[in-house]
Amino acid sequence: MTITIIGLGLIGGSFAMDLRESPTISELIGVDTNKEHELKAVELGLVDRILPISEAVRASQVIILAVPVNAIDQLLPGILDIVSDHQTVVDLGSTKLKMIENVKDHPNRSRYVAAHPMAGTEHSGPEASMKGLFQDHTVLLCDLENSAPDACKTALELFHLVGLKFEFMDANQHDRHAAYVSHLSHIVAYALSLAVQKEEKAGYAVPRLAAGGFSSTVRLAMCSPDMWVPIFTQNSDNILTAVKAVSEELDEFRQALESNDENKLRELILRANSIKDML
Amino acid sequence: MTITIIGLGLIGGSFAMDLRESPTISELIGVDTNKEHELKAVELGLVDRILPISEAVRASQVIILAVPVNAIDQLLPGILDIVSDHQTVVDLGSTKLKMIENVKDHPNRSRYVAAHPMAGTEHSGPEASMKGLFQDHTVLLCDLENSAPDACKTALELFHLVGLKFEFMDANQHDRHAAYVSHLSHIVAYALSLAVQKEEKAGYAVPRLAAGGFSSTVRLAMCSPDMWVPIFTQNSDNILTAVKAVSEELDEFRQALESNDENKLRELILRANSIKDML
Repeated sequence: MTITIIGLGLIGGSFAMDLRESPTISELIGVDTNKEHELKAVELGLVDRILPISEAVRASQVIILAVPVNAIDQLLPGILDIVSDHQTVVDLGSTKLKMIENVKDHPNRSRYVAAHPMAGTEHSGPEASMKGLFQDHTVLLCDLENSAPDACKTALELFHLVGLKFEFMDANQHDRHAAYVSHLSHIVAYALSLAVQKEEKAGYAVPRLAAGGFSSTVRLAMCSPDMWVPIFTQNSDNILTAVKAVSEELDEFRQALESNDENKLRELILRANSIKDML
Repeated sequence: MTITIIGLGLIGGSFAMDLRESPTISELIGVDTNKEHELKAVELGLVDRILPISEAVRASQVIILAVPVNAIDQLLPGILDIVSDHQTVVDLGSTKLKMIENVKDHPNRSRYVAAHPMAGTEHSGPEASMKGLFQDHTVLLCDLENSAPDACKTALELFHLVGLKFEFMDANQHDRHAAYVSHLSHIVAYALSLAVQKEEKAGYAVPRLAAGGFSSTVRLAMCSPDMWVPIFTQNSDNILTAVKAVSEELDEFRQALESNDENKLRELILRANSIKDML
């Protein structure tokens, strides 16, 4: 089987690394708009060769889109235009509704499988690729009733190869869910980073002195805008709801602190502690 | 040297574990208000034996307070009442101003060294103790000009034994700094946990599906109220300033999302990314 991976960053590169281990995959073709990333991906052995996108699509049984979600929107219709009934197109984007809507009337819609593997790190680019990134994580698969059974089977087999577990939901549910358990964490980390940096400029806070707790909470603030601005704008309604929910909880803490209400603080913390049962 | 550790939880227990390795420390005595923790600490070999607090203090060259900050406030004056010029009292609390103020006119003030090791995990109790918890972290030492030189030397030697690096600051600076790089991360994590749990009840968000990013950001939400309510109330002014700062940054994101302002989102994220240079 020949597979094309469009987007040779952390996600595409890590996916390629794991697929490499499988004897059923004979060739991996890479595509990226960044020439340095293309060269680096070949140098690192992530893919066998680089081709222009249309040639790569024509040469492959499976085409995997691992680019920012706005680029998925732009590329997906054109890719579906040229695929046949024997090819499968899979995207790995962090939003689902807009790109699915975008191709809902496309004659080749059924060749497309919409997926979101819930895995990543704060690093980006081909050098950030790592083996086993997806192992034991979950891939959310959306609206599979609109994908051809053989395309679903092909996609699930590849996801199984890299160690992903499956969950199925509709695109609306997905985007709401992702806003809370993924997109919101990023905004919270960005906001924490910005607040601490302002204080740093005022000469007080010194993050280098911080314990692991701060690093853990702020880690996602290192995630790149190229990937995250398109996610935030595509899923802005759900994310706004989620950001408002966090702001309200912060207000609860403010009120409890202002009134020195120890019982209220304890009650808030005890409820927050329950997240343990969900992780 | 005989050392008493008051508070046999994560911090006291981990400190004991590391001190155990040193041939200069002949005996470790444990004190805790929780009888189960006392038994467990002996069973785990964290301390050699348990004594009532006043006997333990009298039997030791060094007394280490590793209890919640409100308990430090309550215990410290009474301990200073009974120590001699050959004994050193060290606290490991996460706030410093109130407890230092509290004993500023005590005749034995100079036997006390105020310290805050910037290390921990979200777990608590003696079973949470781990070797090397402090290795390469920083201990913030406050107002050392009011501690006797020999007491400072004793405390620094112990901190060096467990692998801590030193930073010196006044208690005011400390509490402001700690609000931003430690206490705030906890409130942000608690707020994120509460927001996601509310959504979970509404049937949408499913944290078990989340990637490592969510777990990392929300990890501190598992920290116990026994330790954190007293910290929040003792340092409420600084923490309120810090919480307001984060809320303002969240509002910036809300405004950018509401107006679909990609440039603004990119600019916020790029500035947030700079935290990388400080970690």
